[in-house]
Amino acid sequence: MNIAILFGGSSYEHEISIVSAITLKKVLKKSNLSFIFCDANREFYLIDAKNMKSNHFSDGAYKKDKKLLLKKGGFCIESMFGLKEQNLGTVLNLIHGRDGEDGKIASLLEFNDIAYISPRVDASVLSYNKLYTKLYAQSLGVKVVPYSVLNVGDGRDIELEYPVIIKPVRLGSSIGVSIVKSKEELDYALDVAFEFDTHVLIEPFIEGVLEYNQAGCKTSEFELSIVEEPNKEEFLDFEKKYLDFSRDGKVSDADVTIELKTAMQETFKKVYANIFEGSIIRCDFFVVDGEVLLNEINPIPGSMANYLFEDFEGMVGRLVNSLPKEPTIKIDYSYIHSIQSAKGGKA
Amino acid sequence: MNIAILFGGSSYEHEISIVSAITLKKVLKKSNLSFIFCDANREFYLIDAKNMKSNHFSDGAYKKDKKLLLKKGGFCIESMFGLKEQNLGTVLNLIHGRDGEDGKIASLLEFNDIAYISPRVDASVLSYNKLYTKLYAQSLGVKVVPYSVLNVGDGRDIELEYPVIIKPVRLGSSIGVSIVKSKEELDYALDVAFEFDTHVLIEPFIEGVLEYNQAGCKTSEFELSIVEEPNKEEFLDFEKKYLDFSRDGKVSDADVTIELKTAMQETFKKVYANIFEGSIIRCDFFVVDGEVLLNEINPIPGSMANYLFEDFEGMVGRLVNSLPKEPTIKIDYSYIHSIQSAKGGKA
Repeated sequence: MNIAILFGGSSYEHEISIVSAITLKKVLKKSNLSFIFCDANREFYLIDAKNMKSNHFSDGAYKKDKKLLLKKGGFCIESMFGLKEQNLGTVLNLIHGRDGEDGKIASLLEFNDIAYISPRVDASVLSYNKLYTKLYAQSLGVKVVPYSVLNVGDGRDIELEYPVIIKPVRLGSSIGVSIVKSKEELDYALDVAFEFDTHVLIEPFIEGVLEYNQAGCKTSEFELSIVEEPNKEEFLDFEKKYLDFSRDGKVSDADVTIELKTAMQETFKKVYANIFEGSIIRCDFFVVDGEVLLNEINPIPGSMANYLFEDFEGMVGRLVNSLPKEPTIKIDYSYIHSIQSAKGGKA
Repeated sequence: MNIAILFGGSSYEHEISIVSAITLKKVLKKSNLSFIFCDANREFYLIDAKNMKSNHFSDGAYKKDKKLLLKKGGFCIESMFGLKEQNLGTVLNLIHGRDGEDGKIASLLEFNDIAYISPRVDASVLSYNKLYTKLYAQSLGVKVVPYSVLNVGDGRDIELEYPVIIKPVRLGSSIGVSIVKSKEELDYALDVAFEFDTHVLIEPFIEGVLEYNQAGCKTSEFELSIVEEPNKEEFLDFEKKYLDFSRDGKVSDADVTIELKTAMQETFKKVYANIFEGSIIRCDFFVVDGEVLLNEINPIPGSMANYLFEDFEGMVGRLVNSLPKEPTIKIDYSYIHSIQSAKGGKA
């Protein structure tokens, strides 16, 4: 199986995408891997497997690697003799945050007719923006945590009771997120969140809420991961976050009732169906009074949540064989031909 | 003012995009125009102004024109001496339907750092899909026509009373749309709609509903068009559609009360604000019992609805000077550097 791991991007999560890619290199042992780095300036580079170390990027050494150009049909290397197409196989979009999760990379790959694992453009926009995720979930009858939205220009009166959690609508990995325990702390937390986005989401902070993650994808059928009970510390420092994105060991299935497990699986399928085909996503659920609430959709989870699957590499292979295809649109100029004949051949 | 009109696309509306582009050539008289054609195969061509006639495309003559390649910073021509960047100015995205309105073209231009007039990727996804438009409008407190959604795999029982209107969720220009007067006609209409999409929207068909269009954009302030009362015929045949997309004459302001006009303008601004910056859109409103309902957002209206504006070309110029810019994200590898120093320099 030929897989090209695409990572980096012009994103606050650029660095953890590098960590994710290094991790997947270890996990996808049987595959023929290529590595495409998108640097901060959105230039693409083909990285040798032996150079897949974080300092190759942080030191700027990657700039000596071959530059890639994306065109119809695939990535190319510019050479003395024109553009030379590279046959890198299916692209696995591993760019976390902006570019990767906001629909841009999906658009580039779709437009250029390259097979790829990633949420498509619709699914990206709806999951990257936490407000749109709520609207989408509610339209499916999936319950969400109550919320309100503040615009950067709005007043700062909020109606929810403290403590609340403040999140920029469009970022992942807890960037810009604060827990606010009283009115005095609100202004500072909003300033922080508005550093990263023009809109912020405000939700009640539910102390000790039960939190579970469910990952999965749809190949010929749904393939769901075990249920994970994530780390509940309020904040992960860089060392812990690093561990979180470089995980490749297995975790154990969370201790939940069969009813709750089924409810989460059914909710996952409802959220995934129709728009997330072609991607491996993770849904983060809250359980309140026995009810499953969708907290967030992680459209490109850290190291693709590989550690939650029994046979991650096998699943990636099956997904490669069941990627959605855009419908073909036949353009035969019948409309222009009709106008031309109605006008006596001149148009 | 340098403007590159981008038209065509892999879209059911490919041909009317050509008509739109030919029309804008006549309308933007004082500008320095270039024409970029995206053919059915998604290859870009630089078209000479003198070749901007419909048969140049329908006959395939455009294939002899210079091929363009999109890369970081702009469109290029591939030559013996490598890639030669073309300085074509601000791109005006005039691709109707797929590619142009679904977020792909916006993504390509944004990613490659090219100034462009078009809805950005979020705004595209929310307006291209009529279901998402409803969710978005409702989240703003904007009223919409009641609706239900059918998935291609679902049963075909509908709860609304006849007559109903059936629309594929993701197409414009009335493609795949039917008015269904009784249960007997439902199956055929659904078959037609499902030819074009996996999801269809069903709405009550409100006989004789008051219908108005309001176009506009935001430059240093909102610039709104006159209000148009559109053609109310049930279906436009190709000749009438052609006229509709090639309009460059002025129409007269609809005869509405100042209160209704204000209500439509305020609704337009609410819908536009924050996500449609950089684009000229048209909102199609219904008025029922004096209340303004958003029917559809047309993110790239035919010939940019130029005929609704007093000074269209001047407005385009002002828009070119107030395009939104993506925030800069500084990537300094501080996170990887911290890990490296924690690990004693190895990572």
